[in-house]
Amino acid sequence: MDSKGITAPELVTSVWLNTAEPLRLEKLRGKVVVLHAFQMLCPGCVSHGLPQAAEIAAMYSRDQVQVIGLHSVFEHHAVMTLDALKAFVHEYRLTFPIAVDQPSEVDPIPVTMQRLNLQGTPSLVLIDKTGAIRLTHFGRLSDMQVGNMIGQLLMENDDSQDSTDKPDRAEPQANGQCDDEGCSL
Amino acid sequence: MDSKGITAPELVTSVWLNTAEPLRLEKLRGKVVVLHAFQMLCPGCVSHGLPQAAEIAAMYSRDQVQVIGLHSVFEHHAVMTLDALKAFVHEYRLTFPIAVDQPSEVDPIPVTMQRLNLQGTPSLVLIDKTGAIRLTHFGRLSDMQVGNMIGQLLMENDDSQDSTDKPDRAEPQANGQCDDEGCSL
Amino acid sequence: MDSKGITAPELVTSVWLNTAEPLRLEKLRGKVVVLHAFQMLCPGCVSHGLPQAAEIAAMYSRDQVQVIGLHSVFEHHAVMTLDALKAFVHEYRLTFPIAVDQPSEVDPIPVTMQRLNLQGTPSLVLIDKTGAIRLTHFGRLSDMQVGNMIGQLLMENDDSQDSTDKPDRAEPQANGQCDDEGCSL
Amino acid sequence: MDSKGITAPELVTSVWLNTAEPLRLEKLRGKVVVLHAFQMLCPGCVSHGLPQAAEIAAMYSRDQVQVIGLHSVFEHHAVMTLDALKAFVHEYRLTFPIAVDQPSEVDPIPVTMQRLNLQGTPSLVLIDKTGAIRLTHFGRLSDMQVGNMIGQLLMENDDSQDSTDKPDRAEPQANGQCDDEGCSL
Repeated sequence: MDSKGITAPELVTSVWLNTAEPLRLEKLRGKVVVLHAFQMLCPGCVSHGLPQAAEIAAMYSRDQVQVIGLHSVFEHHAVMTLDALKAFVHEYRLTFPIAVDQPSEVDPIPVTMQRLNLQGTPSLVLIDKTGAIRLTHFGRLSDMQVGNMIGQLLMENDDSQDSTDKPDRAEPQANGQCDDEGCSL
Repeated sequence: MDSKGITAPELVTSVWLNTAEPLRLEKLRGKVVVLHAFQMLCPGCVSHGLPQAAEIAAMYSRDQVQVIGLHSVFEHHAVMTLDALKAFVHEYRLTFPIAVDQPSEVDPIPVTMQRLNLQGTPSLVLIDKTGAIRLTHFGRLSDMQVGNMIGQLLMENDDSQDSTDKPDRAEPQANGQCDDEGCSL
Repeated sequence: MDSKGITAPELVTSVWLNTAEPLRLEKLRGKVVVLHAFQMLCPGCVSHGLPQAAEIAAMYSRDQVQVIGLHSVFEHHAVMTLDALKAFVHEYRLTFPIAVDQPSEVDPIPVTMQRLNLQGTPSLVLIDKTGAIRLTHFGRLSDMQVGNMIGQLLMENDDSQDSTDKPDRAEPQANGQCDDEGCSL
Repeated sequence: MDSKGITAPELVTSVWLNTAEPLRLEKLRGKVVVLHAFQMLCPGCVSHGLPQAAEIAAMYSRDQVQVIGLHSVFEHHAVMTLDALKAFVHEYRLTFPIAVDQPSEVDPIPVTMQRLNLQGTPSLVLIDKTGAIRLTHFGRLSDMQVGNMIGQLLMENDDSQDSTDKPDRAEPQANGQCDDEGCSL
């Protein structure tokens, strides 16, 4: 885990599921935020990433840790629609808040995925109590590693950082390849 | 396993993937046919049924055992489209022949699923060398049980039966419920 | 699976557990015999081989399939004693008949293991209804493969073979190496 | 996790493996200590507890986290000997320091297990940088839970506590029962 990080850019989303109103990162200061970027047709997300996100949501109090699923579609856009996602979320019984990453008008990669410079899905982004990005990981992390990092972030004070840095903009070309680990750009 | 069974009704399908031309059960006499009915948004199919079907396809010679996937959509019809199935088959790297069960004009349950009187997905149908249905199972079967049954069917002669019975027609109402085991009508 | 095989040499054992009286292969004609050679301190036996043997014992009728555990100690003789085996069998709740392979007076490899020319533990030996060895496998086999082979053997008539061949005697030196798959000579 | 705890009593042991010299808790102040009490013939220890301890040892720097295996034999004393343990440790390739809990002269339960008032094996004891016991758990804990707790303990200062309390002495009767979770007194 980086000892400090840049402030996470605000999520840019089109729709939210499993929440009465949209979540904003800036309103989540004081909590650890676990952002899990996935695609519903990504095998590694379905077998490993989403179950891990659900376990985090079940294990921690929502007062301390906020899990957010981010449906960042960068391939097969025509079939990973909102209705398809709704059916998927229903059948897989996902109950934590899930946002649809805002599609770009000029790029297959959606807006938040670009801003976070993610390499593919599943990706895990850990944001500390001050709003700083402390981990960005594409692929699989063990439950013990994830538990360890969240445990450490929970112990930090929330006034320890005041970063206003902006992340570099990234515009990778989408040519997704999926394997057991996940789907990469 | 039943000691004998009725002849499997012919598959009624709209599209085939992973095969140069449609398969017909009547052309497969002399082989054991493993028919795996699934839905791409059925968790039990994704985690257990389809990997088992793929293992069967990898383990047996296609001269002896023909695995067929049957996409029998009885819920969420609007999103489990042919294009969505194609993306799913691509991402999950399924290589055995897969057919789309013909949608019914008057019923949410597709035609072959009705004819086979399946209870939900995943369902496994084992058809012997004579074309008779020897097992219809909804839910999970262990690999050892499936291997045992296929092994036994392979040892039978293919001139042992000549059933021309027709299965009873079933028209269940589709009100799908999914759990860890699968999605039932 | 070999299409035919030599007759299995009779088991040479010092003690039996989980059975009122010793089993003899020659008395088991008409049944498929699943002989599982293991050592209680062999990781691959504990994690994979013995659970598979227990699943076979649970799935098949003992009228058709006889599972036999064979404790073939070829290393750490001083600690894999009968009392240690009894404690192991109790704690792991093994209920199928288990025999202690007769120690050799001149060789670290016990007698039956020598006669069967096994390479290490776990080893699976499948014996058909006529008493012929049809498979000898060191290491891991999938449940589907094992189920398939037993299913095929169950379909054979028990008067199909009458082999009186004797296996070649083997006297390998014991220099056991264990890995995830098992312990080899 | 308790917010504070009593100081862990010193380990009372007869032999150490995998270390040049015996470890003493009082010399480990400043590190988080993960004490894993096990028996080599306890199925839950073999399948879950010891692999988890090994993963902890592999994931954390030994400068920060010290994993200690404690062979606390409370049943089958005659066969879980030092030589048997050595063979077990060799075959299972355990590389973290392992101590043999000192047998009691008057009780089947060994001395350290009594002092820690453990209910059975596997048991996990987490000791913070000040030497205080922060968790005592019999049975299974998820990797995420364990990672979370160690991560939190790592973030604490090591001068935050100065407890000199002694734990109550416990002398349970040993009538061990093992199930999938572990072996209890």
